[in-house]
Amino acid sequence: MGKAYDTFRELLGEVFDLNAAAAVLSWDQQTYMPPGGNGGRAMQLSTLGRLAHQRFVSEEFHQALLAAAEDVRRADPESDEARILRRVRRDYEKQRKVPSAWVGEFNRVTAIAQQAWERAKEHSDFAAFRPHLETVVGMRREYADFFTPYENVYDPLLDDFEPGMKAAQVRSVFEDLRPKQVALIRAIQERGKPVDDRLFHRAYDIQKQWDFGIEVIRGFGYDFERGRQDKSAHPFTTSFGLGDVRITTRFIPDYLPTGMFGTMHEAGHALYEQGISTSLDRTPLATGTSLAIHESQSRMWENLVGRSRAFWSAYYPSLQAQFPAEFGKVKLEEFYRSINKVEPSLIRTEADEATYNLHIMLRFEIELALLERRLPVADLPEVWNAKYREYLGITPPDDAQGVLQDIHWSFGILGYFPTYALGNLIACQLWEKIQQDLPDLDARIERKDFAPLLDWLRRNIHVHGGKYDPEELLQRVTGSGLQAAPYERYLQRKFGEIYQL
Amino acid sequence: MGKAYDTFRELLGEVFDLNAAAAVLSWDQQTYMPPGGNGGRAMQLSTLGRLAHQRFVSEEFHQALLAAAEDVRRADPESDEARILRRVRRDYEKQRKVPSAWVGEFNRVTAIAQQAWERAKEHSDFAAFRPHLETVVGMRREYADFFTPYENVYDPLLDDFEPGMKAAQVRSVFEDLRPKQVALIRAIQERGKPVDDRLFHRAYDIQKQWDFGIEVIRGFGYDFERGRQDKSAHPFTTSFGLGDVRITTRFIPDYLPTGMFGTMHEAGHALYEQGISTSLDRTPLATGTSLAIHESQSRMWENLVGRSRAFWSAYYPSLQAQFPAEFGKVKLEEFYRSINKVEPSLIRTEADEATYNLHIMLRFEIELALLERRLPVADLPEVWNAKYREYLGITPPDDAQGVLQDIHWSFGILGYFPTYALGNLIACQLWEKIQQDLPDLDARIERKDFAPLLDWLRRNIHVHGGKYDPEELLQRVTGSGLQAAPYERYLQRKFGEIYQL
Repeated sequence: MGKAYDTFRELLGEVFDLNAAAAVLSWDQQTYMPPGGNGGRAMQLSTLGRLAHQRFVSEEFHQALLAAAEDVRRADPESDEARILRRVRRDYEKQRKVPSAWVGEFNRVTAIAQQAWERAKEHSDFAAFRPHLETVVGMRREYADFFTPYENVYDPLLDDFEPGMKAAQVRSVFEDLRPKQVALIRAIQERGKPVDDRLFHRAYDIQKQWDFGIEVIRGFGYDFERGRQDKSAHPFTTSFGLGDVRITTRFIPDYLPTGMFGTMHEAGHALYEQGISTSLDRTPLATGTSLAIHESQSRMWENLVGRSRAFWSAYYPSLQAQFPAEFGKVKLEEFYRSINKVEPSLIRTEADEATYNLHIMLRFEIELALLERRLPVADLPEVWNAKYREYLGITPPDDAQGVLQDIHWSFGILGYFPTYALGNLIACQLWEKIQQDLPDLDARIERKDFAPLLDWLRRNIHVHGGKYDPEELLQRVTGSGLQAAPYERYLQRKFGEIYQL
Repeated sequence: MGKAYDTFRELLGEVFDLNAAAAVLSWDQQTYMPPGGNGGRAMQLSTLGRLAHQRFVSEEFHQALLAAAEDVRRADPESDEARILRRVRRDYEKQRKVPSAWVGEFNRVTAIAQQAWERAKEHSDFAAFRPHLETVVGMRREYADFFTPYENVYDPLLDDFEPGMKAAQVRSVFEDLRPKQVALIRAIQERGKPVDDRLFHRAYDIQKQWDFGIEVIRGFGYDFERGRQDKSAHPFTTSFGLGDVRITTRFIPDYLPTGMFGTMHEAGHALYEQGISTSLDRTPLATGTSLAIHESQSRMWENLVGRSRAFWSAYYPSLQAQFPAEFGKVKLEEFYRSINKVEPSLIRTEADEATYNLHIMLRFEIELALLERRLPVADLPEVWNAKYREYLGITPPDDAQGVLQDIHWSFGILGYFPTYALGNLIACQLWEKIQQDLPDLDARIERKDFAPLLDWLRRNIHVHGGKYDPEELLQRVTGSGLQAAPYERYLQRKFGEIYQL
């Protein structure tokens, strides 16, 4: 490549650095920052966000982009350089439609909304969060309007997380899937063979939970030389560049699964980021290509691996060694059934595999209604509770366990939830292909040998980072676009066996 | 104030935020960052430093500064607004002489030099650090040359840490003080009444060291709602704004004083920062006015309080409770003598009060010789060791305990060391005034009541932040400029009594 391309990469690197710095500040805010830091941190994040945006949409950057395009014109369209340029040009076209002042204000508002959400959740006081959420929803509508014309006000938001995906497609997939998933849950409940998971509701020493989690994800292949784990109220994975990809986990003293599966889940995200080609570092391609693909990775390690018989036949002795009083006399098969108990519940992050997507579907419907002005924020708790009754047959006793349970909206994130459900679908779609390519996969996992799986994921998914759009990536790897059938087959087979349907 | 002043404060706030973000990244680098983060972090710090500088010396900022000056012209020259403007104008005049590209390169070079220093120190391998230090010294000379004409190449560097101070003045103070300090040490050694401090060289549980330190600095008045303590290889205090002032401490498993007095030392710095008027937040005045004044605060809490009989008559029972096996049978008076043992030693940070300044004086002489090109970097270990023999009568067995012991030069910091010695002088100068104003100070400290002392410091020193230059502040508070006599009196009285001279 020529000098123009180098200049472009340099300016791009600056924007990357500003965003990475903001990610460090945000990580610190959620892990170690003392309460007194709140006000200053909100200002700092606002400034970094605004400057990153300003520089990205500056005339200087635009000129560098145009000049680099000349350099790249004759390159292989599949080369890193061509793909970086294509992606940056698309991001540029989107971002320059958003005024820098709006970005700064949005960062400021959401930093404060986050704090308000934390207090509101603590006191189960939706009224205290309501004005913040109204501001956030209003600003999100403003954001969508920067991208008129659109098919649906939801589309520009969704596109930021899932490039190319439309609300109409999500609705169609969800409407097809929901009755089948509801029918499965009904069949399980009618079968009347309840699984007992009371053994998880005991006092589990946090340090031992931590140690077991570390052992597992080290086994998966998470590289602690290029990452670390800390504790935070809401678990997340964050990358400050390919050499520093961190996870956080929340451990609960009297409920084991949260920390255990949460650690595997975040490690799944982190393995994706750690596996990206270093040739893409300090560019917007140095991250997963979309949130649904990202979630396919976290859910694969958490569920397809982490809740499988093969995995536990390898790791159950370790868990028993950490907690001999609790599991010493519990048979593997009983344990396996317990971690796969299906039961409609209130909290999304704790939901089992069979009910999880219903939590997402109702959030999607609510977001759509909020943005389309069919639902005022004030009515949110009522509508939330009504939908939980309708889809899951249960009613939240308070808003902390209801509409205030997720951090996302306080961050200003709307249009994100569907990617969780899509991730579950994609995980299963990839899994069918992996099982074809690696016929001895289960046997390897039973020997704690995750290398073939991780290697397959690295070669087919991770290494590419954001080079291919999600649909394109799925096509390359599985030969078709998004499919719900493998997910349906997986649920039927797994829970059909456990519940003898 | 008018609208122009507000605009000026807004732009100033942006620069503050960028610097605060860099401080967070640097804190993270020294506390939690995994090794893989090094490369990316160096880029991020370079970008933040360059952008902060670019914005500060931009034409936009210059115009805002000029317009704000009109707004402020008729304000009280002692008002926050007038003082902020005066200080910013001075910083601006200095910084615009330094090209942004130089700043970015300097940040990049020193981020790498730091890592090189860590490895070099670990393997006591000066040769591995030498090329980095040569680059740093060369760039520091370039830096000084942005400010020609100067009296001495050292002056522009020193001025960044100690506004208004000149190398000639430092040399004069040091040359006057050195023979007196050497004479005192000789007298102590000739007196032949050695103090035994072997009891500190035992296994001290790190958690207990930590807990005792926390108890002490909480007693001092350090506010954990607006700060926290972490561990790092080289202890430091850092501020991300007045609501978030953090300290780090290094604990050694088999030597108690390092962590114990280090914690008090950093808390002394942090109390200064936490006490600054919030009206100065997000401006360059929201920090201590100079490093020597800063060091006067840390050394006051570490030594004048932390190594006094009054303090230990209050806290010795707590220490005995943490370490009953070690101190249960050791009398307070014996303990007091042990923490005040005078003995020439190799490591500056571990040096006692009587020998400490000699470590500084030789570093000052070496820095001066390096910058004046009288000493090539390659000869540094030899000259270093020769000076230790000459002033302290001891020779470092290796470079890790010699010329590689301090992190400062790897950070690119030259012209900084003298402020440590000046801080010792100023601490004693202030202490004489405090004792006049608070005649019952010792009695209060004996009751663990630090409120009168902290209140005095807040009112006279802390609250002002950077409003007054160091010399001006000393004049206001003590009625005279820098004096060495109180320090000399303090050493003579304290060690004359302990060693019965």
